[in-house]
Amino acid sequence: MAQTTTSTLSGGTRTENLASWAANLKFSDLSEDVIQKTKDFFVDWLGCTIAGRHHPAVSAIARFASQMGPSSGKSELVDGSLNFTTSPAFASLVNGASSHVVEQDDLHNRSIMHPATVIYPAALAVAQDVGATGEEFIAACVVGYEVGCRVGEFLGKSHYERFHSTATGGVIGVAAATAHLLKLDAAQTLSAIGTAGTQAAGLWQFLMDATHSKQVHTGKACFDGIFAAYTARDGLLGTKDILEGPRAMGVALVPGTTNPEAIDQNLGTDYEVLRSSFKWHASCRHTHPSADALLKLMDKNGVAFEDIESVTTRTYQAALNVLGMTGRGETVHQSKFSMGFVLAVVAKKGQAMITDFTEDDLEDSSLREFQKRVNMELDPEIDRAFPEKWQGTVIVTTKSGKTFTESVEFAKGDPELPLTRDEIERKAHTLAAYGGFTDTGKVNQLIERAWNLEKEKNVDGFVF
Amino acid sequence: MAQTTTSTLSGGTRTENLASWAANLKFSDLSEDVIQKTKDFFVDWLGCTIAGRHHPAVSAIARFASQMGPSSGKSELVDGSLNFTTSPAFASLVNGASSHVVEQDDLHNRSIMHPATVIYPAALAVAQDVGATGEEFIAACVVGYEVGCRVGEFLGKSHYERFHSTATGGVIGVAAATAHLLKLDAAQTLSAIGTAGTQAAGLWQFLMDATHSKQVHTGKACFDGIFAAYTARDGLLGTKDILEGPRAMGVALVPGTTNPEAIDQNLGTDYEVLRSSFKWHASCRHTHPSADALLKLMDKNGVAFEDIESVTTRTYQAALNVLGMTGRGETVHQSKFSMGFVLAVVAKKGQAMITDFTEDDLEDSSLREFQKRVNMELDPEIDRAFPEKWQGTVIVTTKSGKTFTESVEFAKGDPELPLTRDEIERKAHTLAAYGGFTDTGKVNQLIERAWNLEKEKNVDGFVF
Repeated sequence: MAQTTTSTLSGGTRTENLASWAANLKFSDLSEDVIQKTKDFFVDWLGCTIAGRHHPAVSAIARFASQMGPSSGKSELVDGSLNFTTSPAFASLVNGASSHVVEQDDLHNRSIMHPATVIYPAALAVAQDVGATGEEFIAACVVGYEVGCRVGEFLGKSHYERFHSTATGGVIGVAAATAHLLKLDAAQTLSAIGTAGTQAAGLWQFLMDATHSKQVHTGKACFDGIFAAYTARDGLLGTKDILEGPRAMGVALVPGTTNPEAIDQNLGTDYEVLRSSFKWHASCRHTHPSADALLKLMDKNGVAFEDIESVTTRTYQAALNVLGMTGRGETVHQSKFSMGFVLAVVAKKGQAMITDFTEDDLEDSSLREFQKRVNMELDPEIDRAFPEKWQGTVIVTTKSGKTFTESVEFAKGDPELPLTRDEIERKAHTLAAYGGFTDTGKVNQLIERAWNLEKEKNVDGFVF
Repeated sequence: MAQTTTSTLSGGTRTENLASWAANLKFSDLSEDVIQKTKDFFVDWLGCTIAGRHHPAVSAIARFASQMGPSSGKSELVDGSLNFTTSPAFASLVNGASSHVVEQDDLHNRSIMHPATVIYPAALAVAQDVGATGEEFIAACVVGYEVGCRVGEFLGKSHYERFHSTATGGVIGVAAATAHLLKLDAAQTLSAIGTAGTQAAGLWQFLMDATHSKQVHTGKACFDGIFAAYTARDGLLGTKDILEGPRAMGVALVPGTTNPEAIDQNLGTDYEVLRSSFKWHASCRHTHPSADALLKLMDKNGVAFEDIESVTTRTYQAALNVLGMTGRGETVHQSKFSMGFVLAVVAKKGQAMITDFTEDDLEDSSLREFQKRVNMELDPEIDRAFPEKWQGTVIVTTKSGKTFTESVEFAKGDPELPLTRDEIERKAHTLAAYGGFTDTGKVNQLIERAWNLEKEKNVDGFVF
């Protein structure tokens, strides 16, 4: 059944416009490319979720869910080995934490956030709770992407310097997606957005000591956004202008300038889900343009790993900020945030897939030596174009004294260079195997079901 | 059984010192005045919790707890009419929301936060979950006050301009109190503090439109702090320097300067619970010094409500910021944040108790007329002393043209002018009656039990 409520707010704020749009969107409004892309990222997310299931943070959060939550419920954990169902708040808490572990989930360029890891776990769990159809689930995910990414873009680059935007924009996207599935009207959706925004949190400090907050941020964004929408349905009033108000997020959480027009311009014309990028490499997305440029340079000029004396990458400020926090990279997770280590991996192995970052790799002296000979520089032109464009330039000096330069305008997986369905499927199989799930027939079956999601009467059973 | 673990961190950060202290505190370390004051605020909190139970936000949150949480558990809701027990995370979510509704819970001056409304609901629910004794519960509350208020003081005045410190400091206090009850060691306590801090949130925007975020902030601070400590126990690593680190709270959530020494100076010598203030009036704490000064002025000079032409209150900047947000005060809750309305109430009724703010009062034209003739001014000297001292000066001009001035250095309820046990009991009875609970025998019985809390084998049964 499609959304039937129609309600529009007339207070004239941008946030009201966004809430009205979110409450009124119907599946029948969606173009074929929006539907297809939403399914692409769903398959991509499923693989990420099963891949992350053995992380200690996920285990701790799953235990919290079993201790604090109900012993059964309508919502499922993607990790079937845990063998429990629960309420949507807890299912999404665990699935959301799990799907951000291996750094292979999508990235929305303009907002610098990872929408899949918050929107899908929440929308899936709530859709299961309310018995939504595949169509309703897809529409809710589109709403979640749209609202979350627009908020992330509103908060902008300077916010991202301090906050993990995936959590702060994400919690609002989750609230909107959940509100849509609960068929809230525009005023209730606005309440949900307000209550979500006043819970927005998530700091980068954890990158300094390789701790587990990244999983907390995504899991809790799901839980908190669901809290916001269910309580809005039941009469809890959220503040109405949580983005642009005088004591709201734009003032409190943004040291620089915001992008107000991002909140509501071209609503219903542009779709943010079309602007999200797949991650091909299993490393921080800020390393991808440089990694692609390096691979291209080596291929074009016949330069081998052993030939390289030094690499200079020219990049944007946000990359310097994030990648500068992890030092040498003492853990597998942290090593994916070291530009030097990631470039060493791609140069040596020709790729930086999930199986290319192991404890053994951390001890590989050839990688560690190479890592030291990589440095990062700010490129003002690249920085100006960011985050609209995530470009990269590398300058390689060889041991024989030659210098080569190569740039990429788009990284593999960007909207302009998306993965093919075949690549998406291969990636999902690799991720499932990494998570220790070896039943490839079951993986194929889940993927096949996802490709036909709009025909499904419900979205139960996405369990590995 | 007293805490038996001994563990001390040696990294040398202030946050490590705080975590080590929190993990190692024993009930036997506490002086009699600390124990007594902790019980005083507990009784005060019980009354606030039952008084707030009918608020729509509390109802919505209770419904969320019943939908998302377990159908039974060891932790109790103070509102016995709801007739359910649940997990500690959900019990504290509901009790925490309820206890901040009527604006009668305590206020810790230096940190500008309300510790009781977050520390007691969380510590009570967790103590019930783990079967802690009265002594263990008291020690955990002392830890919660100490850690929460020190973090609030560290974040300081400029943080409070944007954030509801009760939530942002509170979530860390809750994590520490919970960690203490779970008998976590210092390293695990530090993890809990880190995970709590990266969830810290709560914006003032809701004051602009009289919405319900204040209840969300306190309830969620409980839930999120409990999440932080239970997951820390189970292996989730929180970041180690969430207060002073380069991407931590002090940088991201504080536009001005922090007070680093507040984190760990005089630990074990000073006790923050001794520095918290009771609220006597049922209005925003920023109105209390002016209300007391006005009552004193009227009494001393024989000035009656009808005699007053205008009132000027001289106060500190934080009061101007918070009280300036609510306009005229369209709801009962909002009216408690209007200096003009609160002074009208005290001038007319000689008090501003919980029963003095009603829908009828909002329509009382004599109060509304008086309200218009009150204005606030910044007093630089008072502002400099804040938040160490919450002082107030009022200047009254009478209709016959006389001018009177009166100041108070401390408001009634301040550590220097605390409530007596008799006043605390009377206040609790008034609050219970306000909440519609009329069994005064039961109230007396709960109070009596609280006065002897350290002798209790468990803390079950604090249910109205």
